[in-house]
Amino acid sequence: MSLESDLLQMGARARTAALALALVPASQKNAILLAMAEELVARETAILAANALDMEAAAANGLTSAIQDRLFLDSKRLRAMADGVRQVASLPDPVGEVLSSWSRPNGLRIEKKRVPIGVIGIIYEARPNVTSDAAALCFKSGNATILRGGKESVHSNVAIADALAAGGERAGMPPDCLQLVPTTDREAVRLLCGMNQYLDLIIPRGGKGLIETVVSLARMPVIKHYDGVCHLYVDAAADLDMAVRLIVNGKAQKPSACNSLETALIHESVAQALLPKLLPALAAASVTLRASPDLLALITDPAGATIEPATPADWDTEYLDLILAAKTVGSVDEAIDHINQHGSKHSDVIVTEDAPRAEHFLASVDSACCFWNASSRFNDGEEFGFGAEIGISTDKLHARGPMALPELTSYKYLIRGQGQIRG
Amino acid sequence: MSLESDLLQMGARARTAALALALVPASQKNAILLAMAEELVARETAILAANALDMEAAAANGLTSAIQDRLFLDSKRLRAMADGVRQVASLPDPVGEVLSSWSRPNGLRIEKKRVPIGVIGIIYEARPNVTSDAAALCFKSGNATILRGGKESVHSNVAIADALAAGGERAGMPPDCLQLVPTTDREAVRLLCGMNQYLDLIIPRGGKGLIETVVSLARMPVIKHYDGVCHLYVDAAADLDMAVRLIVNGKAQKPSACNSLETALIHESVAQALLPKLLPALAAASVTLRASPDLLALITDPAGATIEPATPADWDTEYLDLILAAKTVGSVDEAIDHINQHGSKHSDVIVTEDAPRAEHFLASVDSACCFWNASSRFNDGEEFGFGAEIGISTDKLHARGPMALPELTSYKYLIRGQGQIRG
Repeated sequence: MSLESDLLQMGARARTAALALALVPASQKNAILLAMAEELVARETAILAANALDMEAAAANGLTSAIQDRLFLDSKRLRAMADGVRQVASLPDPVGEVLSSWSRPNGLRIEKKRVPIGVIGIIYEARPNVTSDAAALCFKSGNATILRGGKESVHSNVAIADALAAGGERAGMPPDCLQLVPTTDREAVRLLCGMNQYLDLIIPRGGKGLIETVVSLARMPVIKHYDGVCHLYVDAAADLDMAVRLIVNGKAQKPSACNSLETALIHESVAQALLPKLLPALAAASVTLRASPDLLALITDPAGATIEPATPADWDTEYLDLILAAKTVGSVDEAIDHINQHGSKHSDVIVTEDAPRAEHFLASVDSACCFWNASSRFNDGEEFGFGAEIGISTDKLHARGPMALPELTSYKYLIRGQGQIRG
Repeated sequence: MSLESDLLQMGARARTAALALALVPASQKNAILLAMAEELVARETAILAANALDMEAAAANGLTSAIQDRLFLDSKRLRAMADGVRQVASLPDPVGEVLSSWSRPNGLRIEKKRVPIGVIGIIYEARPNVTSDAAALCFKSGNATILRGGKESVHSNVAIADALAAGGERAGMPPDCLQLVPTTDREAVRLLCGMNQYLDLIIPRGGKGLIETVVSLARMPVIKHYDGVCHLYVDAAADLDMAVRLIVNGKAQKPSACNSLETALIHESVAQALLPKLLPALAAASVTLRASPDLLALITDPAGATIEPATPADWDTEYLDLILAAKTVGSVDEAIDHINQHGSKHSDVIVTEDAPRAEHFLASVDSACCFWNASSRFNDGEEFGFGAEIGISTDKLHARGPMALPELTSYKYLIRGQGQIRG
């Protein structure tokens, strides 16, 4: 059989599964999730053995130590994975929520109700924990899922998906709710992206290249979790000690995260006062500063910090590293314009004690999360209180910002009448 | 200058306009809409003259009388167009609505607020009134709009867009909020579909061919208003007189509408009793019945109705005509399976006096609007009380069913803190 006919059959089975899964009550879905978690732990030996094969291949293929670390599973990481599935079981089920309801003058009663999206395709790279995280979130929200992982983690992914499916089916999961594409042939991505008769949504999880490929091929909606080029603006009326704390936290707490800062914009009236506080803090956090010429000119004492001149490319770069670009601006509006031009609409911060200026910034910056006097690192499902997220959407449609269980649902209208016809 | 650089400049200007428009208060947007309506009426002579050029070309090119009728404008239709714009002015502004807000244990206050989507591209065919309808709805919801109409209505579209822009700008509309692509070169569609750096959303309005083209080319979200293959299921416990009324209304009141019925599914236990009521009603409404073999076998007296045998293709066909396919089913679940397999997830009806069976149908049919004892023709923005709609979405993401002003918005999170950092 061809790959195409295999995938089409998976799609058709997922569609059937989705219709059944949409009717499964929360209590049963939760019992299934707990059984999945249990099976993950019960299969520790098999899963770690599969992971060892991936690690061997990674070493043989000379993958970086960062990628090898992301691939690696041990007993502790496997238990954390199972705990993640249990946490999803403990979250409220969004399906069935009545979003609104009203009556019309002709007596029709209209109810807008949350329902699952249907069939979701997850196309992802290295991390094997995406297999269980994405599967648990999609399942809890009532969606059938087709997973397509990368070749680096193929043995781990198969072992994890097998455990989830076996645990789930033992607890009564309808068949085919969770399917893993058993090949890492890149052609599978192209074929899945064309299967809009079966897949209602594709979520790519991985680097920019993967997302670009999916966006250019997909005939169904795609929700993207792109880069974060995030800014912090130090206003003329900022508490400068707070600004330093928020810059260091935003940049250095986890530089590889999309909600980390890349650029500081400093009002020219406070730059001179800020630098003696900021530079030692950057030095202490091992952050390299890439400064614009006007900012460079103000620096008399580097205070141990590594300082380089910024080039125009810096304003558009997501470093994912301990590097911070910085420049001065003449006004909050110049900061807003810079962010709307160079940012990625992800997470942007104003530090100020001036409330009207803060509100102007929050209203004018076209980003998913606009912060006033708080770290950009709080753009996160856990930090928002959502419990678990499938990612941070950089899209504006359907899901924006931290994307959790409610964003994995759609809605339908139920209209109850007494024989009304349209006149 | 090339078409591509022209379009890229339009996109960049639209992005700038969108940022300004997002901050314009409702009162000013409404004043601008009223000025647009006024200008449409004031330019009646110019607009009707432009329309006459389109009508001449339509006649010369042998377009069907149906298309010519859709193209045609007279004083009355132009005034209706202006009234449509005024109606949009009278609707509540969705922008700024606080969708939810909460505080976190660390003191962060999070607010989820409705904001415009940004820049919307509308790619449409023949009807010139789409120019003003779409422009008014997109503008009211705070979005900059790039319109690209079909060549059949190009003179009308230019005249209408000019009037809207002139009226709007006189009342203080930021420049470039409303732009019409001044060429009907098909290459413009391809180029617009690739401009995801400027366009946040494309809405195609037109036939299946246009939608398919946009779906296959677009690198940004597309909201589709596809066909309706809508069903009515006559349950064993149906009020048969009600069933006949709902079938005739669903089929014959406006056969060209997407929410019209195409297929009746009749429980085998009531088919014999239903036919003597249904056939004369179909005959009176000039509806041709395409009946399955089992249903055909039950017909002893056509009662003046035109009856043809159904072929398998009938179950997947949107006739947009006075033709109704019909077959018997053995149970509500057989009806549900048929609808989920052959329907277009648009509008489907159950007629029954049995409440649990109705609720089972409403929960199990995977369609935007599921009706119990009401006509499918009520899937409509006006009928839902939304006032005006941009279309009826057959998508599941972002907008499903009647798509009105709220669905032309996105949201953002505003997070207000006191210097919180992430630990």
